[in-house]
Amino acid sequence: MPAPRQIAPATGRLGVLTPGLGAVASTFIAGVIAARTKGEDPIGSLAQMGRVRLGDRAEGRNPLIREFVPLASLDDLVFGGWDPISANVLEAARTAGVLEEKDLAPISAELEGIVGMEAVFDQRWVSRLEGTRVKQAASKWDLAEAVMADIERFRTENDCERLVMVWCASTEAYREPTDVHQSVEAFEAGLRDSDPEISPSQIYAYAAIQSGVPFANGAPNLSVDLPCMLELAERNRVPIGGKDFKTGQTLMKTILAPGLKSRMLGLRGWYSTNILGNRDGEVLDDPENFKSKEVSKLGVLDTILQPGEYPELYGNIDHVVRINYYPPRGDNKEGWDNIDIYGWMGYPMQIKVNFLCRDSILAAPLVLDLALFFDLAARAGEHGVQEWLSFYFKSPQPTSEQVGPEHDIFIQQIKLKNTLREWMGEEPVTHSEA
Amino acid sequence: MPAPRQIAPATGRLGVLTPGLGAVASTFIAGVIAARTKGEDPIGSLAQMGRVRLGDRAEGRNPLIREFVPLASLDDLVFGGWDPISANVLEAARTAGVLEEKDLAPISAELEGIVGMEAVFDQRWVSRLEGTRVKQAASKWDLAEAVMADIERFRTENDCERLVMVWCASTEAYREPTDVHQSVEAFEAGLRDSDPEISPSQIYAYAAIQSGVPFANGAPNLSVDLPCMLELAERNRVPIGGKDFKTGQTLMKTILAPGLKSRMLGLRGWYSTNILGNRDGEVLDDPENFKSKEVSKLGVLDTILQPGEYPELYGNIDHVVRINYYPPRGDNKEGWDNIDIYGWMGYPMQIKVNFLCRDSILAAPLVLDLALFFDLAARAGEHGVQEWLSFYFKSPQPTSEQVGPEHDIFIQQIKLKNTLREWMGEEPVTHSEA
Amino acid sequence: MPAPRQIAPATGRLGVLTPGLGAVASTFIAGVIAARTKGEDPIGSLAQMGRVRLGDRAEGRNPLIREFVPLASLDDLVFGGWDPISANVLEAARTAGVLEEKDLAPISAELEGIVGMEAVFDQRWVSRLEGTRVKQAASKWDLAEAVMADIERFRTENDCERLVMVWCASTEAYREPTDVHQSVEAFEAGLRDSDPEISPSQIYAYAAIQSGVPFANGAPNLSVDLPCMLELAERNRVPIGGKDFKTGQTLMKTILAPGLKSRMLGLRGWYSTNILGNRDGEVLDDPENFKSKEVSKLGVLDTILQPGEYPELYGNIDHVVRINYYPPRGDNKEGWDNIDIYGWMGYPMQIKVNFLCRDSILAAPLVLDLALFFDLAARAGEHGVQEWLSFYFKSPQPTSEQVGPEHDIFIQQIKLKNTLREWMGEEPVTHSEA
Amino acid sequence: MPAPRQIAPATGRLGVLTPGLGAVASTFIAGVIAARTKGEDPIGSLAQMGRVRLGDRAEGRNPLIREFVPLASLDDLVFGGWDPISANVLEAARTAGVLEEKDLAPISAELEGIVGMEAVFDQRWVSRLEGTRVKQAASKWDLAEAVMADIERFRTENDCERLVMVWCASTEAYREPTDVHQSVEAFEAGLRDSDPEISPSQIYAYAAIQSGVPFANGAPNLSVDLPCMLELAERNRVPIGGKDFKTGQTLMKTILAPGLKSRMLGLRGWYSTNILGNRDGEVLDDPENFKSKEVSKLGVLDTILQPGEYPELYGNIDHVVRINYYPPRGDNKEGWDNIDIYGWMGYPMQIKVNFLCRDSILAAPLVLDLALFFDLAARAGEHGVQEWLSFYFKSPQPTSEQVGPEHDIFIQQIKLKNTLREWMGEEPVTHSEA
Repeated sequence: MPAPRQIAPATGRLGVLTPGLGAVASTFIAGVIAARTKGEDPIGSLAQMGRVRLGDRAEGRNPLIREFVPLASLDDLVFGGWDPISANVLEAARTAGVLEEKDLAPISAELEGIVGMEAVFDQRWVSRLEGTRVKQAASKWDLAEAVMADIERFRTENDCERLVMVWCASTEAYREPTDVHQSVEAFEAGLRDSDPEISPSQIYAYAAIQSGVPFANGAPNLSVDLPCMLELAERNRVPIGGKDFKTGQTLMKTILAPGLKSRMLGLRGWYSTNILGNRDGEVLDDPENFKSKEVSKLGVLDTILQPGEYPELYGNIDHVVRINYYPPRGDNKEGWDNIDIYGWMGYPMQIKVNFLCRDSILAAPLVLDLALFFDLAARAGEHGVQEWLSFYFKSPQPTSEQVGPEHDIFIQQIKLKNTLREWMGEEPVTHSEA
Repeated sequence: MPAPRQIAPATGRLGVLTPGLGAVASTFIAGVIAARTKGEDPIGSLAQMGRVRLGDRAEGRNPLIREFVPLASLDDLVFGGWDPISANVLEAARTAGVLEEKDLAPISAELEGIVGMEAVFDQRWVSRLEGTRVKQAASKWDLAEAVMADIERFRTENDCERLVMVWCASTEAYREPTDVHQSVEAFEAGLRDSDPEISPSQIYAYAAIQSGVPFANGAPNLSVDLPCMLELAERNRVPIGGKDFKTGQTLMKTILAPGLKSRMLGLRGWYSTNILGNRDGEVLDDPENFKSKEVSKLGVLDTILQPGEYPELYGNIDHVVRINYYPPRGDNKEGWDNIDIYGWMGYPMQIKVNFLCRDSILAAPLVLDLALFFDLAARAGEHGVQEWLSFYFKSPQPTSEQVGPEHDIFIQQIKLKNTLREWMGEEPVTHSEA
Repeated sequence: MPAPRQIAPATGRLGVLTPGLGAVASTFIAGVIAARTKGEDPIGSLAQMGRVRLGDRAEGRNPLIREFVPLASLDDLVFGGWDPISANVLEAARTAGVLEEKDLAPISAELEGIVGMEAVFDQRWVSRLEGTRVKQAASKWDLAEAVMADIERFRTENDCERLVMVWCASTEAYREPTDVHQSVEAFEAGLRDSDPEISPSQIYAYAAIQSGVPFANGAPNLSVDLPCMLELAERNRVPIGGKDFKTGQTLMKTILAPGLKSRMLGLRGWYSTNILGNRDGEVLDDPENFKSKEVSKLGVLDTILQPGEYPELYGNIDHVVRINYYPPRGDNKEGWDNIDIYGWMGYPMQIKVNFLCRDSILAAPLVLDLALFFDLAARAGEHGVQEWLSFYFKSPQPTSEQVGPEHDIFIQQIKLKNTLREWMGEEPVTHSEA
Repeated sequence: MPAPRQIAPATGRLGVLTPGLGAVASTFIAGVIAARTKGEDPIGSLAQMGRVRLGDRAEGRNPLIREFVPLASLDDLVFGGWDPISANVLEAARTAGVLEEKDLAPISAELEGIVGMEAVFDQRWVSRLEGTRVKQAASKWDLAEAVMADIERFRTENDCERLVMVWCASTEAYREPTDVHQSVEAFEAGLRDSDPEISPSQIYAYAAIQSGVPFANGAPNLSVDLPCMLELAERNRVPIGGKDFKTGQTLMKTILAPGLKSRMLGLRGWYSTNILGNRDGEVLDDPENFKSKEVSKLGVLDTILQPGEYPELYGNIDHVVRINYYPPRGDNKEGWDNIDIYGWMGYPMQIKVNFLCRDSILAAPLVLDLALFFDLAARAGEHGVQEWLSFYFKSPQPTSEQVGPEHDIFIQQIKLKNTLREWMGEEPVTHSEA
């Protein structure tokens, strides 16, 4: 038995701050409030609904994760955020159209009371949106300071013991890292110069880490996967992670690809198209923003399938990903995947998957889990990239250049659970017992 | 480091005997011959194409399984079998219509040379088929003796060091075990009395185990999952296993269900329909034979999803499985699955999977792997049910009443690989390292 | 120009009587009430929304059908019916779960006021249902008299000028016609003897025709396609028609098949499966009731594709139709069709259609149109089978043994519109002008 | 009875000239040769396989079209064409990969003997292709003269009584008509000046019409739908028509849309995506070439659904069409359509169509029919746009600005057949008889 980790208890209130109070954040908040006021199950939340097996199967020890590790209680969560468009969470939820009125009505007062702070917003990074509730400042440095002031005001006003930040806003335009991102020093100089390569999400990330607040990035743009942020997180001993909530089509991809590989079935091509009609769809209709998403989505197969190890099976794959804005779909994202595989003697077969999913419904429980687990990580003394939470991300941030990220959702799940087992002094599970 | 297991070397020839020389067996044999004569990759074979990671990811040790453990070489395989219809493997392959003429032509002489022995066949167990090449005998005991004589003749004529038997014939009608199956003594008395509850596949299984030949059951009928066979396998120290090759729709189910469960997404229903136009489709058009298949297919979800542990998510599932005979499809089985899931706040979503698969193409590499791994198990001193090979079966035979079979393909895969690691004196992989 | 037909004006109220006040009837009634109280469009109703082109395309004359021919106004419709289970239309609508509460609430009082009369019901014809609001009588003759009394009471109490009856109840078990159906005389003797071959729907049909009320059959069971009913309709000069509302999968089939045939594409097979979770699904889970439906659904392709004329293209088709009860689907019927076609040089292609439809939403406007058009036919002096309304039926009742029914929805549509043109003294459209 | 038209008999040989000897043309030629040498059915050809009903249904007169009207016999067809890449038809067929070797082998000598003439080709119009067998000339005028010389040489060498030309080459880049296209005079001046707005297909069209050869355009680029070509066709009394073979997804659209409209079902959106892996896919991966195709594909719904007449049903449609180059698909084009409809009380439903089609297999019989019917039209004294052949085109060229093209495939079919009936002195069919 390994020795258990020292973990500070989850006393007091935990503030969950989200840049972006749109479809995802409002669905997340509404669901947590429904769970604590009406006792509804927080479906989709591993942290709340999941169990972890301890010892041999025959022992029958399967506690709920939330009873096994010291997570913050849903009753102790407080919500806040920034948004360039929505005035409050109720308005955001109604605009998004994810939740039906019958689900919003009973909790409308509480949702209306959560008023968004003015956002750091710049249309050059999200050309399809127009912000009206936007911070004005002389420089990006001043914007960062304004966010830090918001954080502290929120902490005090809401009497929060601890905070976490989860990026729930739209995808920003694609950019490669530049010199300004190579060190904390360069980045801070860039903030003062309002360097055009510094995006709004980076300003939030900087402000969070400087304030000692863990930061998780739910979108595919660069925010904490930058040398400057790694350095800052290390210096301030803050856990960080990303990026891009693993939902919908990519979720399916990281389920199916390990399955095909387990059977050594060859892959000739994978064509994925998405139709979605919400604000996210509009944003991604811009090629620059789509580029961020495409890069995040394309990496998945290569990592899972290891073409270097299996060139005969995975060395020649046509992988195409398309996203189309299609207003009739509303928030109900729909994916159609066509998968061309081959088996014994090279004979071809096809798998077609049509996923009628709901984007925010799939993302909301991830926001909850990330808030709870990042808070746990901080109390357990962790800092830097939290690889054990790769389970939640389309494009997990690696901890080492050498081995790269792990995309296989089943390996990610084992890693997550074995990390929790280890922290609590239990043996890892190897499934090798009889 | 655990101590490695003593495993006898794979010297000499290995005879692979298949009751049933139809679509599956002929495809398997043709593919192995193509692999060894033309160097084609045996795609879909984990034993031949797969790798096993040893040590930490960073170590980069990923040998091929066939170089890591002492498997029989493809060059040492010899093929034989019994069939009530096909005279030889070439004829069987042409009737099945799985492989194209361009793939059969170059190896036609070798295939034609593999002549089926007369089969133990009884139309009461497969009403839709008519056998013409069938053993005649005074009793089922005599039939068993005739099969044992066939086995020994095959062993001698082909100079085989070792043999394995893999059931590749049609699904038999559904029956519950009866008194005659409760002990070796009762079963042998039943053979002498030609007890009507003893099926042809049970006669083959008895003959194999009595001859010291490992037996794997690729169909859903009862063959070795009977008390008498367990007792006999124990007594003769022979490895056995089953049942029902995990291919097509059920393969997909054991890939998708663990994925949905990993995310704690609720399941309201799963509707599966299959269309297939081959001999298998004709056989399963008979309700009694379909029953065997249905029972084998339905158990999957319950075991993976653990409704007892997760009643809010998996306690109320409508699981429907249908198979329809549809001649235009030929051997190209096609599945359509409709999966009704629900997420955050109970909102419903749908997944539809259309799998244009090829039954025998998916099954053939499983025959190869089972032959190679059962032979390995025998040389490693194993006997009784080989739980580590559950990976290959729709309805894995459990080793203990208490814990039941494992259906999750990812857990099955870990168990298989960690078993190999353990036998070779390597540490199991837990994915918990950084 | 042909001379226009003499048609009596649509003055006064028109009573629409439906045996069956379940999902279809309640959806129909709610929609008509919503249309006349809230001005909602009666979408799906050709009689209300459709236009008919007159003269050459260049003339631009495209009046609405309801302005072109003298139909009853929606404001003049009165609703009534019989049901063995539901007490009133509001209860029926809520049980059915087709319409959302927000659509029912504003009209709930009006729906609640439509109280079902006690039904003629016999579980031998619908084994999966249990009736509680059922007429008791000494003989089937007495039941017919009770229905006729209901009709007259309804006519008087509601001050109806005219009535029509549309069968909206569940599918009855399959039966071939027997001697008792060969003449009015035999049928009336059978009523007196309570002949077991006389079904409830036949009692309603008899009562309607005897009362001078046109009868349309929305289910696949035999009701008016019997010699006795033809004789009676002739004698009483009443229009009749059927059978089985053309919705969902068969609707798609009669759209696609003419399209494939127009291009002379061959058809090798058509596999259709349906999943539905409503009362209809439960009823059709009984093989006897499914048989009625299957016969109605299978005839479609043969008639459209004319295998006698096109043996090379349509002489060898595997046509399979399955219906499965799957509760998660509720009233949302879902069809999956797999169509195997072949083209130039015999090369195969596949079409797969997944129709996420809503059964009652598709059927409701057909009830409206049939009520309006059968009333029109009666006023135009028509009687017997109304072949021009084949457009609405899965299995149209033919007017002559010689030519059989027409299933092609496009020919049916032309026939319907050209009939209206002819009655109003306009030239038929041939599309042959430049 | 109308008086029959005077039609010259189909004596002597008919030369079929195709600019483009690629996948479509080679499949067309191979199929005709197979039909006349091996007696295979020319499946998909209305002209060869179709029947036309004469008189009432009860009369039973349904002659084959090819026996009803005086078409050229398949035995009298001679093939020729131009191609910038393929040397002969056998090579083209093998490169295309549409037909299997077993279908090519028996006719390979005949295919190899059809050698392509050097093409008029300009990469500015098809950026993704590189031509190697290309005419060099001082001006576009000279190119046109060279094509006319080719035509006459072909006529003489092959002893052709008559010729037709069908464009089977790749889609050219999108351009609007310019001044150079407004009259024959302007166009001829443009040829002399090598005006950059004159495309290769226009040079072929000019050459054909100048040579008295009917011209049909199988691609979406502008070729004969230009004022200059209309003027020239009128002057030379030559039949012309286009454009874009109606195959695959658009074929399905013109089948389904009339069906939905017949039932007055509303349409909210139609999302169409295509994956294809052949040369066509590569060409359309260029946005300029895709534009030609997109315009051709988008017009369909508006015309069929008449949003002006039915604003409540068809006034607000999101129609999205995408084409993606996906090499694993080869010549097997695959379409996925998602159709969002609504019915009674506005309730939404969805139809999803997955069409696994074969582009050239669907197009080949259209080439045959167009060749035969344009030749018939010429012999019947027709000239200018042949509206009765709209049946074959995605974007039919209208004969009048006022009424626009007809896209509904069922109306197109009636128009085609009623035209033939009229020419042969038979009554048009109205389907209004009992």
